[in-house]
Amino acid sequence: MKSYKIPEATIARLSVYSRYLSKVEQQGLELISSGEIAEGSGVSPAHVRKDLAYFGEFGTRGVGYNVKELHRHILKILGLDLKWKVVIVGVGHLGTALAMYRGFRDRKFEIVSLFDVDESKFGKVYEGIEVKPFNDLEKIIKEENVDIGIITTPTSSAQSVADIFVNSGIKAILNFAPCVLNVPYNIELRNVDLAVNLEVLTFNIASKQKK
Amino acid sequence: MKSYKIPEATIARLSVYSRYLSKVEQQGLELISSGEIAEGSGVSPAHVRKDLAYFGEFGTRGVGYNVKELHRHILKILGLDLKWKVVIVGVGHLGTALAMYRGFRDRKFEIVSLFDVDESKFGKVYEGIEVKPFNDLEKIIKEENVDIGIITTPTSSAQSVADIFVNSGIKAILNFAPCVLNVPYNIELRNVDLAVNLEVLTFNIASKQKK
Repeated sequence: MKSYKIPEATIARLSVYSRYLSKVEQQGLELISSGEIAEGSGVSPAHVRKDLAYFGEFGTRGVGYNVKELHRHILKILGLDLKWKVVIVGVGHLGTALAMYRGFRDRKFEIVSLFDVDESKFGKVYEGIEVKPFNDLEKIIKEENVDIGIITTPTSSAQSVADIFVNSGIKAILNFAPCVLNVPYNIELRNVDLAVNLEVLTFNIASKQKK
Repeated sequence: MKSYKIPEATIARLSVYSRYLSKVEQQGLELISSGEIAEGSGVSPAHVRKDLAYFGEFGTRGVGYNVKELHRHILKILGLDLKWKVVIVGVGHLGTALAMYRGFRDRKFEIVSLFDVDESKFGKVYEGIEVKPFNDLEKIIKEENVDIGIITTPTSSAQSVADIFVNSGIKAILNFAPCVLNVPYNIELRNVDLAVNLEVLTFNIASKQKK
């Protein structure tokens, strides 16, 4: 399975499909068509067919896909047959929102701790996750064998947080600070720029108006 | 300019480049190479070249791109030569984080108001933006001619918020609630699923381990 050659947009949509499959599997549905997956996950039928084609024959023409098999297969592709430990650094509104985000805990993500430099936040607990002193970050990542670090600090601190992540053996970084981070090539880095989402919308509106 | 045929991934990256161009333009830089744009915005040089190729010849071989021209052109493509009015419904941690997000105010987005059903939040002000009663949503969208609505409510309320957006004449919706919304085809809808970002990372880590 050369899954590492799959385009990132497909991976992102697989993640969306799998959430819908999880829901219908819980409801006891056994078979599903690509059209139903498309409708239920808000993706175009053409995209669904194209994406699922990466994984060979999982469905039967005219019958549909076996929900359980397809769901399990997608989870495995996404690496969600494994458990992942996560830390969040920066306990502002965004860090708190992520800690409490149901989408993380519904999957295989275990948020080990939140970290901040602000003493007044130490010991606070969000959905069972405690805020710990930033100084303990490296120690806890190593002790707990944390896989993924999320950065929700101000831009000025983001690189130094990334450096600690790298030195402590973290495998991947999700960065919400609006800046470019330098990390070694073997670290998976993903930057999330929330303004991009708005700008894809304005592009679409503006394009329609120009037509 | 058939800009509406540009792939969404390119649009998202243009948004990232434009933030970097804005920075270097402020620093007084006049010419820039695609390699410098790549490094400064954390995107691969191959992607930068491919993306900029959509817009014909904006650079001179061996000399680079005129920063000001390229920046202005990208902003225009993204529709950011226009002003956009935005409302946010749902004043939880995420709604608050978005209201205070610098990336929005640095661009052309004017967040008109925040809305919530919780009376105890009415009148609170975040970075100059007031929380107003949810019941006033439709009235204010119409009065202020709001373009874009952001949903950060719980899933159970998301569709009813979207319905009000549609009835009030909003053009585009950015949905952070983890559910599929039904809106007419002429409304631009973008779902942001924060868990997708983590799952692209786990996919990448898992793929490397399987190699």
